[in-house]
Amino acid sequence: MIIIGEKINATRKSVAAAIAGRDEQFIIKTVAEQADAGANYIDLNGGDPNPQAEVANMEWLVKLVQSNTDLPLCLDSASVDAIKVGLSLAEKKPIVNSISLEAERLEAFLPVLTERECMVIALCMSDDGMPTSADDRVERAGRLIEQLGGIGKKPDEIIIDPCFVPVSTDPNAARYVCESIRIIHEKFPDVHIGGGLSNVSFGLPKRKYINLAMLAASVYNGMDAAIIDPCTPYMVPLILAGEVISAADQWCANYVGAHRDGRLQ
Amino acid sequence: MIIIGEKINATRKSVAAAIAGRDEQFIIKTVAEQADAGANYIDLNGGDPNPQAEVANMEWLVKLVQSNTDLPLCLDSASVDAIKVGLSLAEKKPIVNSISLEAERLEAFLPVLTERECMVIALCMSDDGMPTSADDRVERAGRLIEQLGGIGKKPDEIIIDPCFVPVSTDPNAARYVCESIRIIHEKFPDVHIGGGLSNVSFGLPKRKYINLAMLAASVYNGMDAAIIDPCTPYMVPLILAGEVISAADQWCANYVGAHRDGRLQ
Repeated sequence: MIIIGEKINATRKSVAAAIAGRDEQFIIKTVAEQADAGANYIDLNGGDPNPQAEVANMEWLVKLVQSNTDLPLCLDSASVDAIKVGLSLAEKKPIVNSISLEAERLEAFLPVLTERECMVIALCMSDDGMPTSADDRVERAGRLIEQLGGIGKKPDEIIIDPCFVPVSTDPNAARYVCESIRIIHEKFPDVHIGGGLSNVSFGLPKRKYINLAMLAASVYNGMDAAIIDPCTPYMVPLILAGEVISAADQWCANYVGAHRDGRLQ
Repeated sequence: MIIIGEKINATRKSVAAAIAGRDEQFIIKTVAEQADAGANYIDLNGGDPNPQAEVANMEWLVKLVQSNTDLPLCLDSASVDAIKVGLSLAEKKPIVNSISLEAERLEAFLPVLTERECMVIALCMSDDGMPTSADDRVERAGRLIEQLGGIGKKPDEIIIDPCFVPVSTDPNAARYVCESIRIIHEKFPDVHIGGGLSNVSFGLPKRKYINLAMLAASVYNGMDAAIIDPCTPYMVPLILAGEVISAADQWCANYVGAHRDGRLQ
């Protein structure tokens, strides 16, 4: 399971302030708490309306974070230049977050992804907008895998994000996502599947329960990557338990290991 | 969703002592806390090695509990006589817990089930033992539904228990159960499916996480009845969230209602 800790993201006010103020201790602490909770990648998003500031933020974040953790990085930006800087500095094989089928974005990002070994999150989003069914997602996943194969990406370097959309706007939204995960996992067993799933609960009360149920249902259907706040209670343990239920974690080896390491509190 | 509160069960030491000592306050408190947590049936198991004591326990429990709650009862015994007494005393349409395909048990229980209107939990267990695959469960469910149909039970009076077996003894055990739930739900859409799922985590550490992941995966696949301790944190909320994900709770009406009633703490 690829668990990407999502907390270092400039859309969070406190993080934006820490980045703007170059507050090293805040960032280092946020990395450490995610690592302790079971993250195995650290997402870095230094988004800024000023494109040059975003590049400088990425440079500062990558240097700071990788000198304070052994975990590899997930470079999260809509700016090609920020991703380029991140890729040039990252010591361990990083994940690029993210590309989609939107023509302009795809054209700009594909060449960058060949500059060095990296994984990539590929969103089932196109110029037609969000996918609206399970089949739609499967078809788009196929096109993304083909595009990425064309530039030399191996299946296990690709993480397909099926687009987790709010269940409050369509009762079948979550079911379509889970169903697409099941089919993509079956058709492309070596490709990873996952993304940021908290969008599913948008507009609902007590979102944590919806997020956890979605997590368990998604892992049951074959999801093996998640962009989450691993410090949320029950989150990482339910991912690991979901892998037991789905038989991805044969004989519960990973689950029992996590218990031994104190990661199932 | 049928949520059966399982706490009044003589296999629990404190409950056995309360039953033996006719401790009304203990039982009343245990009923109330389960009702508050979201149970909509109260399971009553006064199991005793002495058959006459078991009948007397059931009589005492049914009278006491139904004079202290509006919830209907789930009469839980392997003793035909205890079930008979329970059925004769229960004011609201109860659930009988349980029958199976084991010939002796089936023969003894079927006539009793016609004595009054009641629902029944039907275990996919036979004289050949526990089921070992998804297909095995589906086939047994079909036979149980046929037997119960033969004595006049309507589909929605039947709760098929697919037999939740420990995942520690077979890595695919939980997957087989979920898969059988999906197929039974598809083949018999009016029949309820569920049971006591905590057996799944037998032998593993931090069982609560395995139980919750199994719960969410089962509800996603069509489970709509659960025998649980509703006071366990996250348990009832994850059932309700699972119904949102699976689209059983269209437009989240039930989930939002539970939030309004303070049942999503």
